Amino acid sequence: MTEREAANVRAIGFVGLGVMGGRIAKRLLDAGYEVAGTNRTRAKADRLVAAGMRWADTPREVAASSEVVITMVTDAIALRAVTDGPDGLLAGLGPGRIYIDMSSVNPAASRELAARVEELGASMLDAPVSGSVSTLEEGKLSVMVGGDVATFERALPILRAIGPTVTHVGGHGQAAAMKIATNLSLAVQMLAFSESVLLAERSGIPRETALHVLLSSVIASPMLRYRGPFVLQQPDEAWFDVNMMQKDLLAALEMGRDLDVPLPSTAIANQLLTAARALGLEKKDFAVLFEVLATMSGLHET
Amino acid sequence: MTEREAANVRAIGFVGLGVMGGRIAKRLLDAGYEVAGTNRTRAKADRLVAAGMRWADTPREVAASSEVVITMVTDAIALRAVTDGPDGLLAGLGPGRIYIDMSSVNPAASRELAARVEELGASMLDAPVSGSVSTLEEGKLSVMVGGDVATFERALPILRAIGPTVTHVGGHGQAAAMKIATNLSLAVQMLAFSESVLLAERSGIPRETALHVLLSSVIASPMLRYRGPFVLQQPDEAWFDVNMMQKDLLAALEMGRDLDVPLPSTAIANQLLTAARALGLEKKDFAVLFEVLATMSGLHET
Amino acid sequence: MTEREAANVRAIGFVGLGVMGGRIAKRLLDAGYEVAGTNRTRAKADRLVAAGMRWADTPREVAASSEVVITMVTDAIALRAVTDGPDGLLAGLGPGRIYIDMSSVNPAASRELAARVEELGASMLDAPVSGSVSTLEEGKLSVMVGGDVATFERALPILRAIGPTVTHVGGHGQAAAMKIATNLSLAVQMLAFSESVLLAERSGIPRETALHVLLSSVIASPMLRYRGPFVLQQPDEAWFDVNMMQKDLLAALEMGRDLDVPLPSTAIANQLLTAARALGLEKKDFAVLFEVLATMSGLHET
Amino acid sequence: MTEREAANVRAIGFVGLGVMGGRIAKRLLDAGYEVAGTNRTRAKADRLVAAGMRWADTPREVAASSEVVITMVTDAIALRAVTDGPDGLLAGLGPGRIYIDMSSVNPAASRELAARVEELGASMLDAPVSGSVSTLEEGKLSVMVGGDVATFERALPILRAIGPTVTHVGGHGQAAAMKIATNLSLAVQMLAFSESVLLAERSGIPRETALHVLLSSVIASPMLRYRGPFVLQQPDEAWFDVNMMQKDLLAALEMGRDLDVPLPSTAIANQLLTAARALGLEKKDFAVLFEVLATMSGLHET
Repeated sequence: MTEREAANVRAIGFVGLGVMGGRIAKRLLDAGYEVAGTNRTRAKADRLVAAGMRWADTPREVAASSEVVITMVTDAIALRAVTDGPDGLLAGLGPGRIYIDMSSVNPAASRELAARVEELGASMLDAPVSGSVSTLEEGKLSVMVGGDVATFERALPILRAIGPTVTHVGGHGQAAAMKIATNLSLAVQMLAFSESVLLAERSGIPRETALHVLLSSVIASPMLRYRGPFVLQQPDEAWFDVNMMQKDLLAALEMGRDLDVPLPSTAIANQLLTAARALGLEKKDFAVLFEVLATMSGLHET
Repeated sequence: MTEREAANVRAIGFVGLGVMGGRIAKRLLDAGYEVAGTNRTRAKADRLVAAGMRWADTPREVAASSEVVITMVTDAIALRAVTDGPDGLLAGLGPGRIYIDMSSVNPAASRELAARVEELGASMLDAPVSGSVSTLEEGKLSVMVGGDVATFERALPILRAIGPTVTHVGGHGQAAAMKIATNLSLAVQMLAFSESVLLAERSGIPRETALHVLLSSVIASPMLRYRGPFVLQQPDEAWFDVNMMQKDLLAALEMGRDLDVPLPSTAIANQLLTAARALGLEKKDFAVLFEVLATMSGLHET
Repeated sequence: MTEREAANVRAIGFVGLGVMGGRIAKRLLDAGYEVAGTNRTRAKADRLVAAGMRWADTPREVAASSEVVITMVTDAIALRAVTDGPDGLLAGLGPGRIYIDMSSVNPAASRELAARVEELGASMLDAPVSGSVSTLEEGKLSVMVGGDVATFERALPILRAIGPTVTHVGGHGQAAAMKIATNLSLAVQMLAFSESVLLAERSGIPRETALHVLLSSVIASPMLRYRGPFVLQQPDEAWFDVNMMQKDLLAALEMGRDLDVPLPSTAIANQLLTAARALGLEKKDFAVLFEVLATMSGLHET
Repeated sequence: MTEREAANVRAIGFVGLGVMGGRIAKRLLDAGYEVAGTNRTRAKADRLVAAGMRWADTPREVAASSEVVITMVTDAIALRAVTDGPDGLLAGLGPGRIYIDMSSVNPAASRELAARVEELGASMLDAPVSGSVSTLEEGKLSVMVGGDVATFERALPILRAIGPTVTHVGGHGQAAAMKIATNLSLAVQMLAFSESVLLAERSGIPRETALHVLLSSVIASPMLRYRGPFVLQQPDEAWFDVNMMQKDLLAALEMGRDLDVPLPSTAIANQLLTAARALGLEKKDFAVLFEVLATMSGLHET
């Protein structure tokens, strides 16, 4: 497949049609790509099928019928479940194909998978995203890509259709590393924001007003703009729950230890996520760090 | 002075024409206000005088000739120097006038000053800003205001000319409190960002690339967008130096202690600012937290 | 007063006959000294009077009738209350006398008081102790002394009667500094111990067993040996409460800031003491840090 | 083997004759036991052979000829190397024998090994010690024991000959857990102690004096009494190096995460151990935390 051909790639496969995956698949359909997809539970795919996606029964089938196949699943275990085995993606991946993993897994796992893909004569990219559902819907997703440059360039049109910001950060696993390095700032920003809100509130400023001022200030990252309001009302469904965030912080802390980078604010945020779990909040969005701090402030005392 | 009259206020006094103060005075001149101003060193006022500002020799003169007088100085000590004494602002402040302090001082000091202003028959607002020179120049400054509602409404047109975002957060001193609550997030965000950059860099990603990805991601607060690049090159002149930031964090920690709000991430960031001082970096912009972490990571080992 | 005379000092004055002060005065009586004493509430002195102490109505009287006068009060405010004013200790302090302050106050306040004592022709020592009631009763108290060497040597026999360990650490205020530097380790050791106990308990080891093992191990400082059992049962009366400990940590953090010493573990322990206050535990012994951590671990969830 | 017989056990095997293991084996020889032992490098066993120990070439031989066999190696990897394979300890372990592992491994690994031992009809105890070479030499070692009560009682005479303090803390792996819970306090106490020393020193008190006062105070745990002087002079050989301590802290943090126990002071100490590694100090005794803090205090600035 030459670059020219790459630009002409139309057949894309998609494995993992959850909250994020489903929306990305939809963007690709909207951009005119032919998409074949599969998911653990078929019901979640109904709307995509209605929008023109072709359903496939197994990851293997998806891979076999696509020039480029994408996975977007929860974690390393879920990834292994869709890549391995007789019905797995690798079983259907032919020479010359491109496999893009958009899941968040640790760098080592990603590099190991890339090596297995190369043995099949195909090429892999790790391409996690920074951002959440709302970022995607606003068309402001940032995609980090790890892998060789040639593969990156072949996949660029597709990645741009998802993005729009797409950055090649380095070799295999380095986008996974970049994602983890990014996510530690998410958790710490949320912790600091919670400290800001509680301190303002205890000073006599209504929580809503404090929120308004903080979200109009220079600390208002896109993440805080959508997650900040959760301190008024936790969402029904977590966008990124305590367990998922802690998984990323543990990966960051492990990397920090291996690479000799002290991560003091990450370490503290991680301990407060443990407190969140201890308080029974592990399935809540990680913005629940505010509740942990509120508990430590005696706010939930009777 | 009625609201109607307030809308017609044209004579504004300005004390403190430094980096921020000078630019705010300029905005008011540009908005058509008559501005009389003074500053410790006259040279800094030359450009403003050229732009139409009337120079006054003392804060007292500024106050005496203005319907609304504004101060914007470094800290509580500098504020006392311009408000007190025979040539001080309070000596010139007549009944019915409005005094707006835009400096960052602690809530208690601000409340005490407001009481003295009221004894003169005038009204005070504490109106610190969130943001830096670049925020101001982009016209995106956020002004928090403490004081009574009537005075706030009278001053609103002027504050909007500075802002544009203006929020009344509560009574006297509460805007000062809000500012301190906001600034703790600045320091912690910068620390977390430094952890993100160093971790990415040690993973093999070039620092420039890591910066680019992080500043395209959902963690990119306005503060990080202008201060993030300082990890490549510290600026010649600090916008907000280690000492100034630590002054705010100490105020936050003292408030947290008094109001029973634990501030774990603030406490850690504050210790790293102490390390910055110990390393001789107290006059650098607080973005130098990156250098502290780099030192702890052995980056400056020989 | 020569050294020879000093060895012959028999008349000692004592101001502040609380939990520690009363027991120290008793030791001096037991050692054969003539002790005149006073206290805010006379009732606390009854047992001492029965044991031979002469009651005096004011600190001034105590000072006037003693060659060496000692104070042992709660904090800087209480100290000022007994030293200043017409009935205060300084009003009765004559030339050549020695004044020993065993209270815990900050170094600057201690140095200032020493200067006032010297103006009267007398000499001061700051002599805080490390240890608690039980340490005293076991005869294992350690006394740190700040002030000039000559005065120190004159006072040594008396200090040894209290001690027995007595160390001259430096000039005025430096024993106060040494005390604060010591106390930060008390708080942090208690926090770490609480982490050890809770982790062991959650692993399935009974709390009593964990306690027994930890207190037989190399981490068992004298402080932990008497305070450790508080994790089973908080004492009725605090030996050193959250507010007192936090006062010392705040002094340590302020010194650390002024002297460029980052104190990361102190900063964290201090935040958890704030949480203790927020949870309504400020009057409990600081060993209640265990309860704060237990709350964060969900132990008190219903 | 009945209890009566147990009391008569004379043949003990010992695998791992390093700094601690060698000294423990010596104690057993001194107590009149017949000891057969082996070690990776034979040279280290020479003195023991001279003292009456019988050398064996493999762990299998040691186990085969002993009623009770003990291992004392560095970590889980070293343990696996002596237990597994054709020449491994398990290959020589017969029914009714007792195997005591005194290494520090994580609870899960210890439980897994215990299950394999039981399949052979033998019984295992995990019996890590708290304390270091000097504690052992002073005869003050504390041994924590995990495993079933019957086996514990049979092994008690031998464990007491090592101890003298021996505590049964619970089932398989729980002594390993207790050891990890204990060691986190070692690291945090050393960090707090370093903060105390540096703060005192910067206040003008000579480091030696500060050390003397602190080690006479109620914070002076046995660990600090032998390790405290390292802040004056790091030892030539680490007793417990940064890497070993960090291994234990990582185990503690992992347990804390799994068991919902936040460990804030442990998390901070761990980050400073990472800084120690980054500064090239990973092979130094963990007391080198003092040097990390000194670096952050600008003490090593030029």
